Amino acid sequence: MKIIEGGVCAAKGYRANGVHCGIRKSRDKKDLALIVSEVRASCAAVYTTNLVKGAPILVDQKHLADGKAQAIICNSGNANTCNANGTEIAEEMSRLLAEELHISNDDVVVSSTGVIGQPLEIGPIAAGIPTLVAGLSENGTEDATEGIMTTDTVKKTVAVEFELGGRTCRIGGIAKGSGMIHPNMATMLVFITSDAAIAPDMLQKALSGDIQSTFNMLSIDGDTSTNDTVVVMANGLAGNPEITRDCEDFRIFMEALNTVNVALCRMIAGDGEGATKLLECKVSGGRDLASARICAKSVICSSLLKAAMFGADANWGRVMCAIGYSGADVDITKIDVAFRSCTGTISVCEQGAGVEFSEDKAKEILLQKEIEILVDLHDGDVEATAWGCDLTYDYVKINGDYRT
Amino acid sequence: MKIIEGGVCAAKGYRANGVHCGIRKSRDKKDLALIVSEVRASCAAVYTTNLVKGAPILVDQKHLADGKAQAIICNSGNANTCNANGTEIAEEMSRLLAEELHISNDDVVVSSTGVIGQPLEIGPIAAGIPTLVAGLSENGTEDATEGIMTTDTVKKTVAVEFELGGRTCRIGGIAKGSGMIHPNMATMLVFITSDAAIAPDMLQKALSGDIQSTFNMLSIDGDTSTNDTVVVMANGLAGNPEITRDCEDFRIFMEALNTVNVALCRMIAGDGEGATKLLECKVSGGRDLASARICAKSVICSSLLKAAMFGADANWGRVMCAIGYSGADVDITKIDVAFRSCTGTISVCEQGAGVEFSEDKAKEILLQKEIEILVDLHDGDVEATAWGCDLTYDYVKINGDYRT
Repeated sequence: MKIIEGGVCAAKGYRANGVHCGIRKSRDKKDLALIVSEVRASCAAVYTTNLVKGAPILVDQKHLADGKAQAIICNSGNANTCNANGTEIAEEMSRLLAEELHISNDDVVVSSTGVIGQPLEIGPIAAGIPTLVAGLSENGTEDATEGIMTTDTVKKTVAVEFELGGRTCRIGGIAKGSGMIHPNMATMLVFITSDAAIAPDMLQKALSGDIQSTFNMLSIDGDTSTNDTVVVMANGLAGNPEITRDCEDFRIFMEALNTVNVALCRMIAGDGEGATKLLECKVSGGRDLASARICAKSVICSSLLKAAMFGADANWGRVMCAIGYSGADVDITKIDVAFRSCTGTISVCEQGAGVEFSEDKAKEILLQKEIEILVDLHDGDVEATAWGCDLTYDYVKINGDYRT
Repeated sequence: MKIIEGGVCAAKGYRANGVHCGIRKSRDKKDLALIVSEVRASCAAVYTTNLVKGAPILVDQKHLADGKAQAIICNSGNANTCNANGTEIAEEMSRLLAEELHISNDDVVVSSTGVIGQPLEIGPIAAGIPTLVAGLSENGTEDATEGIMTTDTVKKTVAVEFELGGRTCRIGGIAKGSGMIHPNMATMLVFITSDAAIAPDMLQKALSGDIQSTFNMLSIDGDTSTNDTVVVMANGLAGNPEITRDCEDFRIFMEALNTVNVALCRMIAGDGEGATKLLECKVSGGRDLASARICAKSVICSSLLKAAMFGADANWGRVMCAIGYSGADVDITKIDVAFRSCTGTISVCEQGAGVEFSEDKAKEILLQKEIEILVDLHDGDVEATAWGCDLTYDYVKINGDYRT
């Protein structure tokens, strides 16, 4: 498997674009994105488990009932959530796009991200769609990525190439993250395209399985958004024998999908609102997957640990504390904790108690941009990883006045 | 019932003191506190549910097996948690105090708060105990309160007077809060004294019942500490007929205890690390107590909502979002949300959708020190309240470098 360029346009038969249509005030910020497959594609999606769901999700659940789609349209600047006429607006977005593309309305996936509870006007979107469609290009992944960003500071895009049944296949994805990121069955917006041939039910199985160890192990601030959505389209243009069951090809597809999703998770975590560091908590020695995951995620979610990482403070007691209240059934007296980054590794806790260590070396390790928090539960051989970021002044600044 | 002065010394037969013994570096900061009852008292306690427990808690569970105690000793500056010899040190603290006071070792409650995982030396404590005991006074509540503070900026003390069986009774308490506050069965350190006569099992019943609607509804940062402890002593010196069953007097005692605990909760929340505002989420119209409490606590715990409150931003979508992911079974389309403070009340969401409101008026309301977030679920008549604080630059600053 190899990492390649091209994002959502890397796979055969996809074009994308992003424009400014006027939902966001600043003309420099694109606010409408589009991804289109040349042919109808298998399409799977997972959504937020928040009871408050963005109106587009309700529309998508209907449109994807047949496991097929051809286009994804997404606006930023407004979440179209908690609006009395939200569903109408989302349906109108879909209808207008379908008309312009001459495809079936049911083959459109709609997404929105931004402020909750502010009416979304259809005007700017209706006016923007013709330009959006006219500008579709095989080099459009950057523009589409910009179109879905809110407080993101980095464009998140990745693609991989692999082989299935002797044919070259590709999977590529783009994502937006930043704040309100603590997915539960999905994450903020992630759009993935592939040219592999795979039946809709197997595509859904691949996605639903993979997110348990990828997007559901990611947290920026513990807030599960109302609009989280991961969509993957696979149009079959690679010409591989269609995957219709749990076979070796399915395993390869899963691995490629996982590579894309882990890469996007790391990008989302590293670009969390106000973040200066990517945190990866790697739990090993777990008795079972559930407890390993619970521990990893609890550590990544601790505000105190996140603030300590911002300050490059090797305050490992907060790691132990977070494991202790996680709800996982672990033996505290067996746990080892270490910190690792590109400058080295330092052990700070063994068998549940502190060990002497060099504060200078710890500081040097924690001053890096990517920090691994290594937890060995010494209770089995199961591993889990969770991703997050530090808690910084800028997180407070960004969220203290987001709407204005 | 009336609010009175005196904290833990308000009730008959209690003396207290606080000194600097040398655990904390700054000589200006007291780090050892003591509360003593003239006679053995009924004593009840609740502790953290964190699997990682401070060593003192293990000692206390043993000492309080008979429901009786006479003294509480507590150090700040070091949590005595995740230390290989933690239990020995906690036992030694207890033994030294018992010797100095000429009481039974089993009648001592030990507590520690501060950094996790740094060995606690017995030396300064052993040296400090004689001074601590010699200085015991009926006016010592302030000194004791100072002795248990860490990053607290405000002394938290309250007392009430009420009548039981024709006799005047009192309950008073002191608390420390600040960070790592998200109690589960208990909170950070709270010491309560009373002169009421009440059997140990009824005292435990009163405490365990009350914390469900008080300390367990409080969150500063979602981190459940390893050392959370609430202890209440009742020495019977008020001379009321002893409470031994669920009678009218028990109800009155519960009400007085609740008044003390709610007051301390509000003080702890308002003085959360870095906090500029006290947040109270009042949920009404709940179908049942569990769902009302889950909603209130989820709102109070949302980092995004907390940051918005810091910025006086009426971003009510984050209230809805937090209710949506709380896990409570609610009908989103029925929910009303309003903000209230001393300057007025403003409705921002009705039946799950935004309503037009004056941003200026909202700003004025949210710029106050105490903000109520009013949520009506319109699904019954059950109410619940949770307490928290805003998320600020100072929270990050304090916790980015707490150990150094």
